[in-house]
Amino acid sequence: MGITVAIVGVGLIGGSFGLALRKAGVAERVLGVSSPATLAKATGLGIVDAGLPLVEAMAEADLVFLSATIRSIINTLPALSETLKPGALVTDAGSTKRAIMQAAGQVPGMRFVGGHPMAGKERSGVEQADSELFAGRQWVLCAGADGQPKSLEQLREIVSAVGAQPVEMTAEAHDALVARTSHLPQLLSTALAATLDHRLDSARPMLAGPGLLDATRLAQSPFHVWRDILETNSDEIAAAMEEFQQQWQRQRVSLGVDAALETDFQRACGFASRLRQQQE
Amino acid sequence: MGITVAIVGVGLIGGSFGLALRKAGVAERVLGVSSPATLAKATGLGIVDAGLPLVEAMAEADLVFLSATIRSIINTLPALSETLKPGALVTDAGSTKRAIMQAAGQVPGMRFVGGHPMAGKERSGVEQADSELFAGRQWVLCAGADGQPKSLEQLREIVSAVGAQPVEMTAEAHDALVARTSHLPQLLSTALAATLDHRLDSARPMLAGPGLLDATRLAQSPFHVWRDILETNSDEIAAAMEEFQQQWQRQRVSLGVDAALETDFQRACGFASRLRQQQE
Repeated sequence: MGITVAIVGVGLIGGSFGLALRKAGVAERVLGVSSPATLAKATGLGIVDAGLPLVEAMAEADLVFLSATIRSIINTLPALSETLKPGALVTDAGSTKRAIMQAAGQVPGMRFVGGHPMAGKERSGVEQADSELFAGRQWVLCAGADGQPKSLEQLREIVSAVGAQPVEMTAEAHDALVARTSHLPQLLSTALAATLDHRLDSARPMLAGPGLLDATRLAQSPFHVWRDILETNSDEIAAAMEEFQQQWQRQRVSLGVDAALETDFQRACGFASRLRQQQE
Repeated sequence: MGITVAIVGVGLIGGSFGLALRKAGVAERVLGVSSPATLAKATGLGIVDAGLPLVEAMAEADLVFLSATIRSIINTLPALSETLKPGALVTDAGSTKRAIMQAAGQVPGMRFVGGHPMAGKERSGVEQADSELFAGRQWVLCAGADGQPKSLEQLREIVSAVGAQPVEMTAEAHDALVARTSHLPQLLSTALAATLDHRLDSARPMLAGPGLLDATRLAQSPFHVWRDILETNSDEIAAAMEEFQQQWQRQRVSLGVDAALETDFQRACGFASRLRQQQE
């Protein structure tokens, strides 16, 4: 016997979660809260059973998944206070956690656990939804202000059911970590592509091997996804950029001095190799 | 009726070229010049028909492909002078071109065209050789000091026969371009991985999505491949690093100032998108 899930923001992540929950037998009914155009696509694809206004969806949902932008999640949270079904569990998929956890902490009586699935695709939108998107991926869980171990336990089971690996940490630890492992790589890819756009003559043939495609993949991310991330994690991102800057400056000075750069390459190789072992 | 090809340095690139030439019907006989261990693997895999010392291979080869490291190519070139079969065409696969073209220009009477296939794999070694490695990839050709249009035309045909797209340019233009599109991305990936290795507590769980795997893929490159590249292109690489530094500094200052960063994201998105259109 499955539960009723409301997905608020039916894009790649929300749509994939709906599909995965249904496939796992966790969800019996999936409700969508999104724009009319998106809901039409999502119902057409069989991802949501019905599109509803927020208040109506909240009245029915046992599990609420907030998967719009960070700013939109923060703006939606206060509206949940009066509308949730008693006992409903609320979670989210926001890419930064401190601002959302703080906003959620101000909603009285809500069972909330913050979440961040470390999954994605080159293209966004509900058309890209994929029930296997979370398989083998980490899914960060941040215990809410209510401090109920039962809420955390329940979400851990749900996340495991869609194939993800739950990782518990504080919002502070999460934001510090993703500033280094996600936001810094994004800004580097953007800076590389912007540099090449600026410095290369676009009328002449480009020379590009597979490495440049990898290095500029994140640069394709649209700014509207990143605006809120940069805004709600600017202190940690600034620190990560400074840490990178120190390493970069070191390499610039080492250029032509074999021994120093060799150490950097070995260190980098070791990290890249450990990262891949962890992912296997 | 195919020709006899000598591959000097039978690794991923040399081995793949041998396989591709045989498959295309260009090569009738493929000779390998490499270490005994590599030659044993290459003959076992059917990539070379025979492993020979350099002098003996040169006496038979109609086409000589120098595919060892840059330093090794530069050291081998003077030895070719007295040993080449009359009319033989010599080319190479070095990742920088100015130093090699200069060294080749000092070998009297040699028909030489510089080359650089923009292809590769995450792993190196002859075991990774693949007859399709060059399919659809660019292959830079630099006209040699002999200035014979026939040499260039001959190599253009050979490169096209293995499925690559020949791109003619000067060694200077090549080195300036790859400093930006290949060497800069490598150094950024190395710097990112080295920063994370340095700053993250390796005892704690890492958070990593697919973006970090892309961003650290080049960081796996071993230094011995890069030592010669950095040494023979240090002026252009230093300039590319400075160009990146200006963009990076601009983004650091813009953090928290939406409008400026949005322009950078748009510019980066545009570049990444054009790059992909060109590759298709």
